[in-house]
Amino acid sequence: MYRQQNLRIPGPTFVPQAVLNASARPMINHRGPEFAALLAGVTRALQDFLRTQNDVLTLTASGSGGMEAAIANTLSAGDRVLCFSNGAFGERFAAIAKSYGCDVRRVDTPYGQAVKPDHVRTELERERDGGRDVKAVLVTHNETSCGILNPVKEIAEVVRSFDRLLIVDSVSGAAAAELDVDAWGIDVAVTASQKAWGAPPGIAIVTMSERAWKAAETSTLPKAYFSLADAKAYLEKGQTPATPAVSVLIALQESLRLMAEEGLEAILKRHRRLARATRAGIRALGMQIFPDETYASPAVTAFRPPARVDPKNVIRILRDDYDTVIAGGPGKLDGQICRIGHLGFVTVQDVVACLSAMELTMRDLNQPVEPGVAVAAALRSYSADAPSKATAGSRR
Amino acid sequence: MYRQQNLRIPGPTFVPQAVLNASARPMINHRGPEFAALLAGVTRALQDFLRTQNDVLTLTASGSGGMEAAIANTLSAGDRVLCFSNGAFGERFAAIAKSYGCDVRRVDTPYGQAVKPDHVRTELERERDGGRDVKAVLVTHNETSCGILNPVKEIAEVVRSFDRLLIVDSVSGAAAAELDVDAWGIDVAVTASQKAWGAPPGIAIVTMSERAWKAAETSTLPKAYFSLADAKAYLEKGQTPATPAVSVLIALQESLRLMAEEGLEAILKRHRRLARATRAGIRALGMQIFPDETYASPAVTAFRPPARVDPKNVIRILRDDYDTVIAGGPGKLDGQICRIGHLGFVTVQDVVACLSAMELTMRDLNQPVEPGVAVAAALRSYSADAPSKATAGSRR
Repeated sequence: MYRQQNLRIPGPTFVPQAVLNASARPMINHRGPEFAALLAGVTRALQDFLRTQNDVLTLTASGSGGMEAAIANTLSAGDRVLCFSNGAFGERFAAIAKSYGCDVRRVDTPYGQAVKPDHVRTELERERDGGRDVKAVLVTHNETSCGILNPVKEIAEVVRSFDRLLIVDSVSGAAAAELDVDAWGIDVAVTASQKAWGAPPGIAIVTMSERAWKAAETSTLPKAYFSLADAKAYLEKGQTPATPAVSVLIALQESLRLMAEEGLEAILKRHRRLARATRAGIRALGMQIFPDETYASPAVTAFRPPARVDPKNVIRILRDDYDTVIAGGPGKLDGQICRIGHLGFVTVQDVVACLSAMELTMRDLNQPVEPGVAVAAALRSYSADAPSKATAGSRR
Repeated sequence: MYRQQNLRIPGPTFVPQAVLNASARPMINHRGPEFAALLAGVTRALQDFLRTQNDVLTLTASGSGGMEAAIANTLSAGDRVLCFSNGAFGERFAAIAKSYGCDVRRVDTPYGQAVKPDHVRTELERERDGGRDVKAVLVTHNETSCGILNPVKEIAEVVRSFDRLLIVDSVSGAAAAELDVDAWGIDVAVTASQKAWGAPPGIAIVTMSERAWKAAETSTLPKAYFSLADAKAYLEKGQTPATPAVSVLIALQESLRLMAEEGLEAILKRHRRLARATRAGIRALGMQIFPDETYASPAVTAFRPPARVDPKNVIRILRDDYDTVIAGGPGKLDGQICRIGHLGFVTVQDVVACLSAMELTMRDLNQPVEPGVAVAAALRSYSADAPSKATAGSRR
């Protein structure tokens, strides 16, 4: 029997049929005028959604490749780098900088808690007082591994006050959570096609501020494929240095078109509403939201099943019996949590379908679940949260 | 009016409809069992087509990313490297190694001539006599920029006799020209999805011999995204370290299935036949094949239009008036040559269609061309070359 999968991992995200169709268009010459128009259009749309006038470069790579490009283009071996980490992707960011010989200090916040601006300030003061010249601060915007949205706007203010380079991994944050690259003063922001952009994986996206380009001038780390200066030079003639993932770019063009129809503000509101609805449903199942809810991510909900239920069993039954694909915990969180992705082209029906499968799965695991309880809680949250009915948040 | 483009550049190549359709399948979880089966199947098929038992790793990148991975994983800063170059891609290979701080000596052969095994021997002897410990030899298999197929089998024999690491850029060579990774003793071979494999761009493919893995153990160059050791460790659990270009891998799986139906021997014969037919057609138009024909590539034909005809005009008219997209010369060859790609899923009808457009274009440019002359020459070559009718090459 044909069964449509409900792909509810935090990326790659569900790709709409119109975007899939776009990705199947006939191949074109990556050195010709059609490609130049494609690249220019995608770049402009990305600038709009990232709220930046900075250069936006696309690389044929996954988000991790974009994070590596951010480091390799702006830093040099021995550069002092502070990496604020509260999950697997913060750890990855630090590891990449270390592999390039940067003098990385990883400042850990426990998984599930947010990186606090005051913490960033204290650590930058400590470095200054210790006579260490911090070159860059690395921080994760949306920490996908544990479902935390770090307050990057406020962190950026602190980093700006110390006049340091700020490099932000917003791979799963951009277009799901507020991200105002220019107003916040982010030097390098990284995202990727398969997250809230709703396109297939294969394109990493990197923004470069003037300050970042200045840093690039003195950067001595090796870079060839990931050279952003090369990417910029080629972009000016409507090309990329090496052959790009053309079909992914065509798909991204189509998903950006769909996103423009909805508008960024509406997209961000939808993400917040669906995240709240998801958390309401999960709580109604008697489960614990893993992160500090004040900073709960609009893109992904991490939670712990009841004590006697193995998260891996939940994930397996959801997949095998209800064609609903959610994620486990990466790295240290393996076997401890489950994660539901609700970023990109997600509707309340998708969330309801996922929660109904969760209800059935918990009953299959002999947990006491009143039929409809999670779905009802989600719908209650979603209705109460309706932006058109609420005036100045009065009903929240 | 709808017009189907005849994409005749040397990559990205024409992608068959079945492969495009495969690339538009719904997104899947890159950490789930479906992806593990996909990756295992693609890897096995690539091993077959590359005739190797070595590890075959796929990276989400274009071919240049694969070339960089080959260098970053096996070499260290200061390592003496000989790069034999006879075109733009040989130059790129040397530039990548240089950007990583290798002690690169680029040995140039004039564009259009092949790198000769004796030349490789002489240069390796010179290095040895000068007391320089060459760590690796870099060579381009199919030099796309000028349409030359370098005799890598014989070059490999020489490199083996000096017991040096051999790294081969076969980005546009593999599956278009003979490449026998194990029998020839190639340590690292690189290719990419958008060339003779007939899939969209986005996946680079790298083979690693035991000797290459030994070299990797002592390599100190920075590598994170391009770490082949990480790629191998993840491959063993059916995954990739970072999110892969899933839709391109699904497309590649389908193109490999189509290729397996035809069989490697038939594919290689078809490429040789179509290359000969193309050259016959080009010569019939009074144009000069750019490279030494003894080493003319089975994947791409480079040629010079008549003296008074600007190659850029030829390319423009072909594209604007006949929806036929061929390439110019890259880098130093810009404005000097034209290149017709005939790699991947190409039929004799595609070659005929391209040559007919060439005939019309030359007439539009007021060149004396007898209608049908190029097409007839190509068909004559193709018929004379029929493998089923020729016994032991008697009709060639």
